[in-house]
Amino acid sequence: MTAPWITYRPQLKVLDCTIRDGGLINDHAFEDGFVKAVYQTCVEAGVDYMEIGYKACKKIFARDKFGAWKFCDEDDIRRIVGENDTSLKLSAMADAGKSDWRTDILPKQQSVLDVIRVAFYVNQVAEAVDMIKDAHDKGYEVTANLMAVSRVQEAEIDQALELLAETPATTIVVVDSFGSLYAEQIEILVKKYLSYGKATGKEVGIHAHNNQQLAFANTIEAIIHGANRADASMAGLGRGAGNCPMELLIGFLRNPKFKIRPIYELLQDHLEPLRAKVEWGPYVQYNITGQLNQHPRSAMAARAGADRDNYVDFYDKLITEE
Amino acid sequence: MTAPWITYRPQLKVLDCTIRDGGLINDHAFEDGFVKAVYQTCVEAGVDYMEIGYKACKKIFARDKFGAWKFCDEDDIRRIVGENDTSLKLSAMADAGKSDWRTDILPKQQSVLDVIRVAFYVNQVAEAVDMIKDAHDKGYEVTANLMAVSRVQEAEIDQALELLAETPATTIVVVDSFGSLYAEQIEILVKKYLSYGKATGKEVGIHAHNNQQLAFANTIEAIIHGANRADASMAGLGRGAGNCPMELLIGFLRNPKFKIRPIYELLQDHLEPLRAKVEWGPYVQYNITGQLNQHPRSAMAARAGADRDNYVDFYDKLITEE
Repeated sequence: MTAPWITYRPQLKVLDCTIRDGGLINDHAFEDGFVKAVYQTCVEAGVDYMEIGYKACKKIFARDKFGAWKFCDEDDIRRIVGENDTSLKLSAMADAGKSDWRTDILPKQQSVLDVIRVAFYVNQVAEAVDMIKDAHDKGYEVTANLMAVSRVQEAEIDQALELLAETPATTIVVVDSFGSLYAEQIEILVKKYLSYGKATGKEVGIHAHNNQQLAFANTIEAIIHGANRADASMAGLGRGAGNCPMELLIGFLRNPKFKIRPIYELLQDHLEPLRAKVEWGPYVQYNITGQLNQHPRSAMAARAGADRDNYVDFYDKLITEE
Repeated sequence: MTAPWITYRPQLKVLDCTIRDGGLINDHAFEDGFVKAVYQTCVEAGVDYMEIGYKACKKIFARDKFGAWKFCDEDDIRRIVGENDTSLKLSAMADAGKSDWRTDILPKQQSVLDVIRVAFYVNQVAEAVDMIKDAHDKGYEVTANLMAVSRVQEAEIDQALELLAETPATTIVVVDSFGSLYAEQIEILVKKYLSYGKATGKEVGIHAHNNQQLAFANTIEAIIHGANRADASMAGLGRGAGNCPMELLIGFLRNPKFKIRPIYELLQDHLEPLRAKVEWGPYVQYNITGQLNQHPRSAMAARAGADRDNYVDFYDKLITEE
C-alpha cells in the first residue's frame, strides 16, 4: 500500500481567509479582539498567509455602513498587527469593478500588507490584468482569483488563463464560489490551471465553499493534483455555507510546522460564541444552491427569514425559476 | 472536457441506514411515525434499500432497555411496512458476537426482510463467514461489512477478503467506522475489495462516517472507483458525526429514478425537529477522533457533558493518552 500522504510537500502554503470571507456575513464589522485573536492564532499555528479583508471602493461602499475590514486602511491593520514582525504574510483582496485600486492600494513600502489577491469575474479579466500589474509594480506578491468558475464556459476559462499566464501574478486560484464543484471537476480545473501557469512558474491555489460539505474534500483533491496554495477559515467561517475549515485542513497536513492546538483554542473561545450572532454552515438551502450551481444569495435570504426550516418551498421556488 | 458524471450507472444502488445507524444515538427508540415517514420517503425517493435496524441478541440487550429497532421482530417491522408491496428492499444488520442469528433470523419465507448485512470486526471473520452462509441458506441477499477497516493491517484485510470472496455474500462493504479515511485511502480499499470480489461477481459498497466532513466526498470517491452500493442517511443521522447525508448523495446521482423533493420534506418535518432531542454532526470532538483514527466514544461522552465546548482539554486528553 503506497502512502504518499504520510509525508508532506514543503512548498504547500495555507491562507487563512476568516476575516475576509467571514466579513461577508457581518459587513466586515469584527471587533478588534476577534481579529487580533485570529491573527495571533495564524502566527502560532504556522499558517502562511492571513487575508484580513478587502480594499473596497469607499464611494460604492459607505465608510459608516461597513466595518474596517471592507477597506483595510493601513492604520486599521497596524492597530491589530503592529509592524507584523512575524513570518505570517498579510493579504488583502481587491475586487475588479469595486475597488479604487490605483489609489487605495499603497506602494508596498508604505504598507504592512504583503499580498494583493485580485478577484474578478471572467468578463472583468482585462481590468484584472491591469490590477495585477499595478499591484506587482507597487511591490506586492499578487494572485489571480477567477471567481465563479463553475459558471464559466471552458473556452472562456482558457482565454482568461492565457491572459493571466502573461501577468506577474505568482498564483492562479481555482475559486468554487458556489460550492457546486465535485472532485472530478476540481481535478480537471487544477490540471488546466497548472498547465497554463507552468511556463511562467505560477502556483495554483484552491478556494472552496462548503455548500455540499465538499470544501475540505475538494481542497484535498486540489492538493493531490498539485495545488500548492490552499484557502481555509477558522471553523469554516464564511459567507453562506462557509469555507474549508482550517481545523480540518491543518489536521490533514503533515508538515510539522503546522500546529492545530491554537486553532482549537480559537474555535472554543471566539468562533463558537460567534455562532450566537451570525450563522454559517452547509444548511440545506446551501446544499440546494450548490447542487444547482447558483449564487447562494437566495439561500442566505431564506436562512434569514421566518421560513428558514421550510426546505420544500425553497426547493420548489428555485427549480421553477430555473 | 470529458464529463462522465453527466450520465449515470444503472447498477448503482443506494441504502438508507437512517433508522439502523441513527438508532445508535437513541437506543433504537424511534416512534412509529418517524420510522414510517422514513420508509415512505425511501419509497418515494427511489432509494433501493432501507436498513430498519439490528437483529441483536435479547440476552445481551434487554428488551425493555432498547427500542424495537434493536431487534427487528417481524411484527414490529410489519407494523410499519405491512407486506412491503414496494420495490424498496428491507435490510437488517446482524453483528457478529452480538446476535442470536441462528434462531433470530427467520427463514426468508417468514420474513418481510430481503437483506441481512453481517457486520464484524476482523477478528470475527470466521463467525461472519458462518453468519453469511446461514443467512444465504435461509434465502436472503447478504452483505459482508468489515468494520473499522482503518485500524486493520493490510495483511489482515487481505486474509479476510480471501475468506469473504468464497462466501455467498453478494456485496462487501468498505466501512470507515471512525470517519478517518481520506480519498486516497478509499480508492485503495475500493480497488482492493473489487479485486477480491471479482471472481465471484461481488459488488463493493461504501459506508462512510462524517467525522471530518468527508462522508459524502468519500462516498463519491468510492463510486468513482467502482463501488455500486452506497450507504447514506437522512440529514446524515447516525452515531456521533453521522453518515453520508442522503440529500447530498441523491442530489449528486443522475439516475432519474431518484427523487430529492420527498427527502427535503422529510428533513423539514422530521429530522429538524429531532435535533431538539438528539445531537449528531461533524462537531470538533468528532474531527479530532477522526483525525486520530479512534472510536468516537470519547467524543460522544464529551459532547454529552458540560464541557462540550471545551475543545482544547479534549484534544490534550486524547493526545496524551495516545
